[in-house]
Amino acid sequence: MAEQIIPRPIAVQRTLAIFSDPWSFSVLQELFFGVRKFDDFQRNLGISRSVLARRLKHLEQEQIIGRHLYSDRPKRYEYKLTERGRDMYPIFIALRRWGETWLDNAATPELKLVHKTCGHELIPSLDCAACQKEIKAEDIAYQVDA
Amino acid sequence: MAEQIIPRPIAVQRTLAIFSDPWSFSVLQELFFGVRKFDDFQRNLGISRSVLARRLKHLEQEQIIGRHLYSDRPKRYEYKLTERGRDMYPIFIALRRWGETWLDNAATPELKLVHKTCGHELIPSLDCAACQKEIKAEDIAYQVDA
Repeated sequence: MAEQIIPRPIAVQRTLAIFSDPWSFSVLQELFFGVRKFDDFQRNLGISRSVLARRLKHLEQEQIIGRHLYSDRPKRYEYKLTERGRDMYPIFIALRRWGETWLDNAATPELKLVHKTCGHELIPSLDCAACQKEIKAEDIAYQVDA
Repeated sequence: MAEQIIPRPIAVQRTLAIFSDPWSFSVLQELFFGVRKFDDFQRNLGISRSVLARRLKHLEQEQIIGRHLYSDRPKRYEYKLTERGRDMYPIFIALRRWGETWLDNAATPELKLVHKTCGHELIPSLDCAACQKEIKAEDIAYQVDA
């Protein structure tokens, strides 16, 4: 039997490309910490105005954030995650969990994430929606539909 | 009350930095599809031998992969994910889920992931280990321990 060619998922790299440059990543991380205003991004990140403006524009074009006028004179905008942007949160949680598990000197134990839904400290687990068991690489099979 | 300064988690960006350059990412993705041999990476990715060698070395230094001799004459090595490397799988699953949900023309419906544990097609869900509910950005509070 000929070797079956398994297509690679194109979604993974395209998703990564949206936010993986260090500044886009940092801006997105600030958004998840509730930062919304241009000057606050700038102060927190120590980033130049032009680089910041470009990254915000990029995230707006990717529909990760929306821009909203909050002051008319002078004209001031704030930036908010869209639903599409908020839905990137599990990616950040998965990245953090891995880094805190495996990297040296990468823990931030003073920063606790609390799951308001149940009141417990957040321990994330990527589960199968069908059986609720945690997903491990070795339990996944690739199947190609003709 | 003074505004509480919330530290940002350093683990996220450090994790991202390990695999987010396009070639490191592609090599890692091939590993998750079971590719192990230098020539197979090269053929699948259309990558130069020197770039590939550098990326494999990088992933080895990060302890994402281990190198194993499988032929003595000529000396040939194969590359396998370590436990630390395999544990990056949830990150890939989270990236794919987001991309397939939100990006146009990013779906690969012909590639089905099956959860061997239960036999169902994989629908991933990032859940809270305490209450098993799905994690959403808006349900997370940040708390700083003094």
